Amino acid sequence: MPQTVIADLRSDTVTTPTPEMRAAMASAAVGDDVYGEDPTVNELQAEVARLTGHEAGLFMPSGSMTNQVAIAVHTRRGEEVVCAEGSHIYEWELGMMAAFSGVVPRFVPAPLGVPAPEDVRLAVRHSIHQSPTGLISLENTHNKAGGTIIPTEVIKEIRAVADAEGLPLHLDGARVFNAAAALDVPLSEITRHFHTVSVCLSKGLGAPVGSVLVGSAEAMKQAHRYRKMLGGGMRQAGILAAAALVALRGGPARLKEDHRRTRELAEALVGAGFDVNLAAVQTNIIYATLPGAATQVARWAERGVLASALGPDSVRFVLHHQTGDEALERAIAVLTA
Amino acid sequence: MPQTVIADLRSDTVTTPTPEMRAAMASAAVGDDVYGEDPTVNELQAEVARLTGHEAGLFMPSGSMTNQVAIAVHTRRGEEVVCAEGSHIYEWELGMMAAFSGVVPRFVPAPLGVPAPEDVRLAVRHSIHQSPTGLISLENTHNKAGGTIIPTEVIKEIRAVADAEGLPLHLDGARVFNAAAALDVPLSEITRHFHTVSVCLSKGLGAPVGSVLVGSAEAMKQAHRYRKMLGGGMRQAGILAAAALVALRGGPARLKEDHRRTRELAEALVGAGFDVNLAAVQTNIIYATLPGAATQVARWAERGVLASALGPDSVRFVLHHQTGDEALERAIAVLTA
Amino acid sequence: MPQTVIADLRSDTVTTPTPEMRAAMASAAVGDDVYGEDPTVNELQAEVARLTGHEAGLFMPSGSMTNQVAIAVHTRRGEEVVCAEGSHIYEWELGMMAAFSGVVPRFVPAPLGVPAPEDVRLAVRHSIHQSPTGLISLENTHNKAGGTIIPTEVIKEIRAVADAEGLPLHLDGARVFNAAAALDVPLSEITRHFHTVSVCLSKGLGAPVGSVLVGSAEAMKQAHRYRKMLGGGMRQAGILAAAALVALRGGPARLKEDHRRTRELAEALVGAGFDVNLAAVQTNIIYATLPGAATQVARWAERGVLASALGPDSVRFVLHHQTGDEALERAIAVLTA
Amino acid sequence: MPQTVIADLRSDTVTTPTPEMRAAMASAAVGDDVYGEDPTVNELQAEVARLTGHEAGLFMPSGSMTNQVAIAVHTRRGEEVVCAEGSHIYEWELGMMAAFSGVVPRFVPAPLGVPAPEDVRLAVRHSIHQSPTGLISLENTHNKAGGTIIPTEVIKEIRAVADAEGLPLHLDGARVFNAAAALDVPLSEITRHFHTVSVCLSKGLGAPVGSVLVGSAEAMKQAHRYRKMLGGGMRQAGILAAAALVALRGGPARLKEDHRRTRELAEALVGAGFDVNLAAVQTNIIYATLPGAATQVARWAERGVLASALGPDSVRFVLHHQTGDEALERAIAVLTA
Repeated sequence: MPQTVIADLRSDTVTTPTPEMRAAMASAAVGDDVYGEDPTVNELQAEVARLTGHEAGLFMPSGSMTNQVAIAVHTRRGEEVVCAEGSHIYEWELGMMAAFSGVVPRFVPAPLGVPAPEDVRLAVRHSIHQSPTGLISLENTHNKAGGTIIPTEVIKEIRAVADAEGLPLHLDGARVFNAAAALDVPLSEITRHFHTVSVCLSKGLGAPVGSVLVGSAEAMKQAHRYRKMLGGGMRQAGILAAAALVALRGGPARLKEDHRRTRELAEALVGAGFDVNLAAVQTNIIYATLPGAATQVARWAERGVLASALGPDSVRFVLHHQTGDEALERAIAVLTA
Repeated sequence: MPQTVIADLRSDTVTTPTPEMRAAMASAAVGDDVYGEDPTVNELQAEVARLTGHEAGLFMPSGSMTNQVAIAVHTRRGEEVVCAEGSHIYEWELGMMAAFSGVVPRFVPAPLGVPAPEDVRLAVRHSIHQSPTGLISLENTHNKAGGTIIPTEVIKEIRAVADAEGLPLHLDGARVFNAAAALDVPLSEITRHFHTVSVCLSKGLGAPVGSVLVGSAEAMKQAHRYRKMLGGGMRQAGILAAAALVALRGGPARLKEDHRRTRELAEALVGAGFDVNLAAVQTNIIYATLPGAATQVARWAERGVLASALGPDSVRFVLHHQTGDEALERAIAVLTA
Repeated sequence: MPQTVIADLRSDTVTTPTPEMRAAMASAAVGDDVYGEDPTVNELQAEVARLTGHEAGLFMPSGSMTNQVAIAVHTRRGEEVVCAEGSHIYEWELGMMAAFSGVVPRFVPAPLGVPAPEDVRLAVRHSIHQSPTGLISLENTHNKAGGTIIPTEVIKEIRAVADAEGLPLHLDGARVFNAAAALDVPLSEITRHFHTVSVCLSKGLGAPVGSVLVGSAEAMKQAHRYRKMLGGGMRQAGILAAAALVALRGGPARLKEDHRRTRELAEALVGAGFDVNLAAVQTNIIYATLPGAATQVARWAERGVLASALGPDSVRFVLHHQTGDEALERAIAVLTA
Repeated sequence: MPQTVIADLRSDTVTTPTPEMRAAMASAAVGDDVYGEDPTVNELQAEVARLTGHEAGLFMPSGSMTNQVAIAVHTRRGEEVVCAEGSHIYEWELGMMAAFSGVVPRFVPAPLGVPAPEDVRLAVRHSIHQSPTGLISLENTHNKAGGTIIPTEVIKEIRAVADAEGLPLHLDGARVFNAAAALDVPLSEITRHFHTVSVCLSKGLGAPVGSVLVGSAEAMKQAHRYRKMLGGGMRQAGILAAAALVALRGGPARLKEDHRRTRELAEALVGAGFDVNLAAVQTNIIYATLPGAATQVARWAERGVLASALGPDSVRFVLHHQTGDEALERAIAVLTA
């Protein structure tokens, strides 16, 4: 860690609560959410359900939990989850789909994070000699592909595949607010095509902790049991929900600024000779191919700019609301020096 | 819910944060705990480790999670967990020991929540035709037995059994602060006999959310992975840790008051003809045998006193710091009317 | 092992194939059963289905597999299986209900292996704070209780409980042929009250290997997938099925002889001062309480009589068709010497 | 099914027992293998251990079971199994690695079924934010790649990677006898480089049922428990082991004939315009790319030649000892008509 951090671009999860969030937490009405009595949690759940066009919502401490609970709700042991290569539910959720739900991934190719509906269809299995498919899961925006957006038409076609095959469709919407902002559409235009959606409030929106799973009331009833199994039943969780409500109200409008600055940084990097696929820079994430990634990242860190080395020659930068224009200019200076 | 609640005796989990906790949350220094950078979480973990006499600690959103992570750390699939009849890890953690760790309980009798060391020894299995034992787990105080205390001598003997059999020993210490307060010993006098201990800050101590698992640094490293698998990695969790630190500092001293009032209530109930085993009333919990429990509980609720019906003829009262002497008097009046 | 074994009373699983079985195996028509093309397997499955009054059957290499497949068919992860204390599915199937199906047992008391229907009803759970019940499972005859029989009236009442609660009812019928023989009723009088039944051909009936699960065609379709997951799909399994068909046709008639001899042995043991509960001696199993069980068993073994020490002071004798009257007389002489 | 089958080329698992096998089964010395007392099983286990250069062996009813038991022995829940794309342990074992062992696959590219050692090394994970690797697993010959052989030099290099990373190395050797025959080396030249090897006797060798897992005595002890959990403990399994011993002694020498005929068929198919990659035809399997696969397969079946349609445009032919030269000529006539 340097003395002074100019810009922390490791992730959009690193933001600290705003004064408004802190005030909301300090005065939140709370109750025991394990008994369903926390009014602030209930308000947050209802609000996210409304925004996403779903019947009900359930608050949890992380997006990994909302995703894994959804997988448990939709599948039976031994089934397959059809998902894009590089999906967060597989790459960053530590085998939990196997350890808890007893299911394996079935990957489809996904250039720029977008699977072809026909590939999804071909990945669905029916033979009794093979694992049957239990769920189709998408990720929008797709983190590992670079924060890329799945065109809503593609989503609709994949939903048609799911319907034809009698399968549920889940969205890992950790950054679905970024997709909605970039497409300039209401959130529900994207989220209503899914049976369940996991929404994170602690990424671009800036809440300290929390994700919400949405779906039918029946699915949320099952999700409630799985949440408790995973140890996600929290007592006076309204403290966290209060900050999340602030994030939910003020956050989405700020995302376009994040995207503008991300574009600016990406172009500056390309201008300085970095190997960045600009077509993949659609929201708030940039991947650059860079030999000796870890060494480079350590060098920048000494000068106050934090990034992530995600492989021997891969660097990731993520923008968020706590990197303003001035900090970005200084970060660009460091990175392109 | 009644218009005005005189006393909420359903659980010690229902308390709302004190002004001091709210102030601490509003001003907490935080960071991204998934990266291990939240200073307040780190402080809390170190403090609980110190108090319990263990090397390291790990903060999680619930005691169910700390228990289930400990079970995962200690066992391999197909093993047995020797535990007292009525243990929380079985009764109230929804089969998670099976669903996640793939292990089954092996019960030993436990009058007043205290298993005999010899029964524990007999419950350990070695035959290749049966599940081998992977873990011995105790609960102190024992919730379902009435908040009862395991004598420290018994703990030492069971630890000797564990050592002789080469097995780890875990403590579900959701209410171990109550045991220490009632015995008037430092917490570590109890907790140092275990390989891992789960401590809850959101019960008698009054924090809104949070539990800490303690053990060796190596065990906590494994616990960290399992916490992430369960979705318990929270971002700026220092918000919750700040309140937990307040609870940890101020809470234990208040527990003796809870115990005094619990005794007072228990004796009043017995005086009014309730069927309460006073020998089991050792800390802050009272069980009464009462036919038509649910109906009775509903009737009291209408008059502002909340209790739990935990079976067709079983009622539970739990005292906590937000039921003062005056409220208790009024509650007694309602309950014994 | 002694030079000459007079009687192997460790289990009814130790019998060797009869000449008739060997001949059947040598000439069996076989095919690849993974493709469903083994005619002898198909014949066996149909025959067991017919005898038990069920729609379809599925052949597997062991009764542990048929039981665990049934549990998988009926449950979802995190649920409870209501069963009698001492049930084989828990005591001798090595935590598999947890490791594979992710479920835990919920025990009901069972004097002489017979649970009270009301206790079964009380064990069923519905609260969202607890594991829901997924299955009720009985064992008839009940091995650990001493080969005891569940009265058919009790079975009917427990089926009524299952129906009222909307739950499936499984029978571990490893020795259900013994129950039918002792009650002198057709097998289906017992087995038709269950949704699935596991029947062993390698115990009293004397086949070398094999069990059959029966139930609805839909349940067997699911069972087929789980059998394959467990590695129970065998190729030319008709070899085993051929011997099982011989056992199925000739075996049941012999069981009454086993029961008669078991009674004779039990009375001889009691006469010689052994501590045997004669009320529990209902079929082909005898338990005696005997301090220093392992030492005694070793001493008898030197003299040619094999029994099982199942605890520090518990000995089990099991009769089968390869212990005739003469061998029994000689065994009694050794045991009561 | 046609009236008369000329050649069943669906798999090498479809063979029926030879007269010699039937005779061996009819006269086999047997015992209760659950007690470890079946002499024929013990002989088979020792023989396979000797041939593979391992300490001990364990007989099981299928290769799926030996593979899945090995995965359980080597891994802990939540870990990754590094394996080649298209591996049988993933494609045809129905998610069992997830459902039982709680682990997920991590694929490496494998042209002609051969993964590059460097790709294996890169697939190994150490970050605490990701699933750690628990096992590296190879398949030789590789079924889905066309019965292809992993060069022994490549195996040695991958073993070096495993050693450097402190990981165990398993071989799915369902058809490793084919590899040894094609390379004209003793079996142990291939199998000794692995910590565990699964060997099938019911494929090219022609036994009706059975596979053997080999490894260290300690690994087999653990495997024994997992076999029992999976329901793979069989009673008088010596019946099957007797046939397997016959297969083991006579089978390997016949495999070169299968390979010669496979080559002949492959060339005939190419000559007739089929799209077959001859470079992949190394042992007894041929894959052809053929639009309308299912229809074609049905048409051939009517004329007495059975093959497998393994995808919309993929057909597989597998040769075995029950397709002699004359049958092959007639089959070629049908297929190239």
